[in-house]
Amino acid sequence: MTRDQLISEIKSKKSFLCVGLDPDIDKLPNHLPKSAEGVKEFCLQLIESTKEYCVSYKLNSAFFESLGWEGYKVMQELMETISRTHFIIADAKRGDIGNTSSQYAKAFFEVMKADGLTISPYMGSDSVQPFLEIQNKWAIILGLTSNKGSEDFELAKIGDEYLYELVMKKCASWGSEFNTMFVVGATQSENMKRIRTLLPNHFFLVPGIGAQGGSLDEVCQNLMNPEIGILVNSSREIIYASSNEDYAQKAGEKSKVIQEKMSMYL
Amino acid sequence: MTRDQLISEIKSKKSFLCVGLDPDIDKLPNHLPKSAEGVKEFCLQLIESTKEYCVSYKLNSAFFESLGWEGYKVMQELMETISRTHFIIADAKRGDIGNTSSQYAKAFFEVMKADGLTISPYMGSDSVQPFLEIQNKWAIILGLTSNKGSEDFELAKIGDEYLYELVMKKCASWGSEFNTMFVVGATQSENMKRIRTLLPNHFFLVPGIGAQGGSLDEVCQNLMNPEIGILVNSSREIIYASSNEDYAQKAGEKSKVIQEKMSMYL
Repeated sequence: MTRDQLISEIKSKKSFLCVGLDPDIDKLPNHLPKSAEGVKEFCLQLIESTKEYCVSYKLNSAFFESLGWEGYKVMQELMETISRTHFIIADAKRGDIGNTSSQYAKAFFEVMKADGLTISPYMGSDSVQPFLEIQNKWAIILGLTSNKGSEDFELAKIGDEYLYELVMKKCASWGSEFNTMFVVGATQSENMKRIRTLLPNHFFLVPGIGAQGGSLDEVCQNLMNPEIGILVNSSREIIYASSNEDYAQKAGEKSKVIQEKMSMYL
Repeated sequence: MTRDQLISEIKSKKSFLCVGLDPDIDKLPNHLPKSAEGVKEFCLQLIESTKEYCVSYKLNSAFFESLGWEGYKVMQELMETISRTHFIIADAKRGDIGNTSSQYAKAFFEVMKADGLTISPYMGSDSVQPFLEIQNKWAIILGLTSNKGSEDFELAKIGDEYLYELVMKKCASWGSEFNTMFVVGATQSENMKRIRTLLPNHFFLVPGIGAQGGSLDEVCQNLMNPEIGILVNSSREIIYASSNEDYAQKAGEKSKVIQEKMSMYL
């Protein structure tokens, strides 16, 4: 999906919501089997009930991989199922030396047909660049993440700037706002204005509202730009809105509430 | 596998060789089918011909994932096949927020039964710690990698030290030399003595000899410690020693040559 298509979907649905599919087998509603097939059914129903309120789905690879190859197969099948009107993110935090990153690009962009893949930038240029070589696909690079551990290295000071700033500036220079996004945690309110000033034109993928404690209003006020410029992810708050048979309906209702809040900023 | 068991295997085989399985489907010998099954056969024969000369296998997840779930299944089956006398490394560079890293730990340590998993440390403490909680399993954390891109961030200066030094010191403090190793590229000869001084007791996983240009002698002279303290990986030099039907035999011969060199340092 191109940047223009994404912006157009956002405007048409009045939503910049990304629904995060992190299907924990231990939290499936009781009526579903505790298996890869159960996870698939759980996600399919969630997609059905939320699809009109969101523009994007983010599949968290770890929750599929923890079921072995059967889970990996379900992740692949789900990506094939989601309508191409949604921006599909493989949240897999990959990144390796060049010849290996090329294989990950093939796995997620060609085989799985995801639009974007989250990338860990630690290994530098040749670990990121292979993800920028496939047209209309997106490298979504870790900038300043939502978790406590972001203090350890991302917020280490290199001269006058934080490591995450060096990462975002350098990585942005390898691609453009047409193939690169950055992950910015919704819990990082102190740094948001600084980040938007650093990169005025890029899209940011913003996880961390809901279960992790970030505020949608703060994110909108500090990170939006004239072309919207954000995809806000919510996972647990939506997909576990109910632990009963009505989980999909409740997930739809929760998504609608978030979408309505978002529409006020559009 | 415990540290003592690993050291014992190294001494008994007079080898600290790790054979890297990065099976590129485009480089399979012509007689093998260009499919996940072909990759499986390729790896099984390589394991059979090299197993007496190495103490470890490193499976590069990207080369399996690029074949979709069928490739992922082969990776899982191979890990189940390799003898438990070998230290099995899943080279997958994972790492995410705590609840997600826990799922990756489950995927690679419980389902796949790998002994060690390579970890990207960018997201800090809670992204690393879940990998340290399972007994006799190893977090193999990126320190200073072998690739050109290591200059971008790993070699950025934070005060008087490099980022990779901060990473290695902090991550080492979260675990111990009994559950944590670090990746140190064989091409990083200038920094090797500094790294061994920083962490005298830890094992290092050292990729980058052969195709990437690192020297086994330099690695041995600068990174070994009294308890050996290194696993040296070679991938392409071994597994593509021949592109014909004799590939496994040639891989065995190449492994033997490396093992014999290693034995002189033991």
